[in-house]
Amino acid sequence: MPGNKPNALIGQSGGPTAAINATLAGVIRGLSELGCCERIYGAMNGIDGVIAGTVKEIGSRFKGEEDYRALECTPSAALGSCRKKLPDISDKEFYSKIFGRFAEYGIGMFFLIGGNDSMDTVDKLSRYAEAAGSDVRIIGVPKTIDNDLELTDHTPGFGSAAKYIATVCEEIAGDCAVYTTRACTIVEIMGRDAGWLTASAALPRLYGQICPDLVYLPEVPFDYDEFIGSVNSLFGMKPNVVVAVSEGIRDRDGRYVGEGSQSGVKDIFGHKYLAGTGKVLEQTVRERIGCKVRSVELSLPQRCAGHCLSAADIKESVMIGKAAAGYAAEGRTGEFAILRRVPGEGYRIVPDSVPVSLVANRIKSVDRKYINAAGNNVTDELLRLIAPMIEGEVEVPKRGGLPVRFAF
Amino acid sequence: MPGNKPNALIGQSGGPTAAINATLAGVIRGLSELGCCERIYGAMNGIDGVIAGTVKEIGSRFKGEEDYRALECTPSAALGSCRKKLPDISDKEFYSKIFGRFAEYGIGMFFLIGGNDSMDTVDKLSRYAEAAGSDVRIIGVPKTIDNDLELTDHTPGFGSAAKYIATVCEEIAGDCAVYTTRACTIVEIMGRDAGWLTASAALPRLYGQICPDLVYLPEVPFDYDEFIGSVNSLFGMKPNVVVAVSEGIRDRDGRYVGEGSQSGVKDIFGHKYLAGTGKVLEQTVRERIGCKVRSVELSLPQRCAGHCLSAADIKESVMIGKAAAGYAAEGRTGEFAILRRVPGEGYRIVPDSVPVSLVANRIKSVDRKYINAAGNNVTDELLRLIAPMIEGEVEVPKRGGLPVRFAF
Repeated sequence: MPGNKPNALIGQSGGPTAAINATLAGVIRGLSELGCCERIYGAMNGIDGVIAGTVKEIGSRFKGEEDYRALECTPSAALGSCRKKLPDISDKEFYSKIFGRFAEYGIGMFFLIGGNDSMDTVDKLSRYAEAAGSDVRIIGVPKTIDNDLELTDHTPGFGSAAKYIATVCEEIAGDCAVYTTRACTIVEIMGRDAGWLTASAALPRLYGQICPDLVYLPEVPFDYDEFIGSVNSLFGMKPNVVVAVSEGIRDRDGRYVGEGSQSGVKDIFGHKYLAGTGKVLEQTVRERIGCKVRSVELSLPQRCAGHCLSAADIKESVMIGKAAAGYAAEGRTGEFAILRRVPGEGYRIVPDSVPVSLVANRIKSVDRKYINAAGNNVTDELLRLIAPMIEGEVEVPKRGGLPVRFAF
Repeated sequence: MPGNKPNALIGQSGGPTAAINATLAGVIRGLSELGCCERIYGAMNGIDGVIAGTVKEIGSRFKGEEDYRALECTPSAALGSCRKKLPDISDKEFYSKIFGRFAEYGIGMFFLIGGNDSMDTVDKLSRYAEAAGSDVRIIGVPKTIDNDLELTDHTPGFGSAAKYIATVCEEIAGDCAVYTTRACTIVEIMGRDAGWLTASAALPRLYGQICPDLVYLPEVPFDYDEFIGSVNSLFGMKPNVVVAVSEGIRDRDGRYVGEGSQSGVKDIFGHKYLAGTGKVLEQTVRERIGCKVRSVELSLPQRCAGHCLSAADIKESVMIGKAAAGYAAEGRTGEFAILRRVPGEGYRIVPDSVPVSLVANRIKSVDRKYINAAGNNVTDELLRLIAPMIEGEVEVPKRGGLPVRFAF
């Protein structure tokens, strides 16, 4: 029953992050403060929920600051997620289903919080809307732990993942340091195409804390001989060597190091599933050096460690959500909300927006200048760039010493 | 240059924990408050350091509360560790080296903070001392994330590990719940012989939070048919099934499930190295159910997650260290400090001690009565027993959003 004002619909998409709900809370905060819509709906499981009509009124759940804070501290998509590649916009039958749902619920603005692949969805929906003469405003709001989206200074969700990775890598290095027996520990970190997360493993170095000795990013072809040589040369100085390695490292021929141990299965976006990069390097060290060796895959906690949030990340994730609400209220569409770093002294981030078409299906890699000449570590300059994104602690609501999850 | 008072020596041994330094701080606090020794030394890398004479004066590092707190919040053994099985006490040549070092440094009391295997060392040292007429007092102080030591209500270090496991398992269950595609996620948890840590994965249930659906402990023979049947039956109700499994589960013939993927290597105490239990079950689900499946090995962070400490655990770890200092000051030897739960309403823990010979080389398993009839989950009664051990948060000193490590 929409009044004069349109209703708003929000969906979450792609892999969960620890901050994706903070952005959701930000959009709801923004819409509520602006008073620009009648009702706020959530689409369950992203675009799948729009198509299926599994849509829920969520705005009335938020009575005060406490409700927003509870959602902001809850990791993983509270509205559920999906991985769906939309067909070309010439497929009228498909898109008319989606815009039919928009009409059914009186939706005047649709927000999709997602990563690289989700921005492809936003791009297609807004191009279809334009072609079909629909006035539904389509806004993309970024989230991805990978930090591989173009134009935005960094992505909401990256800071908390980077903080968890840096914290755990320091702890693993500390754990390994207690023994005097020669041992190599390989830590496998997420990031199929970009090395931002793996680079974060070296952050403790900025503060004189221990951390991995070698850091391998997917941006530089992986050289087995250099790797074995570097491990051996570190063994000349100390008994414990810790290596941080991206799951996405590739050899000189462009073949994923972890590919050998996989079945070659690809996801619906054509990305190869990777796992086992750490195991492959573990086996390499065992065969070529023969020392004690183990690999640790940081795995899922990297993207859902709500117990190790970056306050800076959560603050920015809320901010970009609020800004996105404002862009829709101003009547903009086909836009992608971004974080812009204000040049000058100190760390200052403001929201902004760009056409989503400039972002979709592109990847922002770590610039080669931020990787050392040997290709086995990152520069302090890169670490100083990332450092402010992991600062500050978030007090998470707890019961019995465990986090309390917000659920719709 | 010892005066009238003897000097004290402290060592750490076995696998690191997040609380082993809190116990070290407790011993130093206790010795300093009692004024019962002249100097406090640390043996680097446990008994190896005693033999090699890599011994360091550490008492003077602690000027005030801040120094103690910094050590108490630092995970992993700050004095380093070792894994060494001592020979029979008939090997006079070996033991005279150790007691020679004690004499060299004027040591009148030796504290070894360690797990099951380390208590074997304490037992042998105290029996040798008695046989040789030495008056050096030998005290064992427990630590182990496994919680598998006899006579003590629980072990220092377990609470923090249990808190990390419960927290991360809730987060993983939350992460898995965002998709509607049928998927099984298997979380492999430490614990070779006892299921205390794996049981902790179910703690969020006590507070109405999500957590693994199935929980398999090593105390019950693992039945592949029951496992596949339970996963399939859960798929009848929901698309995501999360399974917590101990690395040490064994089949009806007593063979480790993870053994097949290992080389059969044993450590110096004769324990088989295990890894791959999760991978074996992942493959089983893939073959017999054919759904999306993955395994997550929680790995090293379970024992060194200083960023997720239990305040109850740290408090008790300090308390038991202080108590151990008191036992030595009273002239006791061959004793093992324990935590005793005071019967009655509420959770109250006091320190106590027992002869170390009653503890060494024994294992405390989870009683069968705490496991459900199907053998695929734990009872609420067990969870209520563990719950108070993970309560309370510890404010860890940070710089740049990352923990600051105390180092000798």
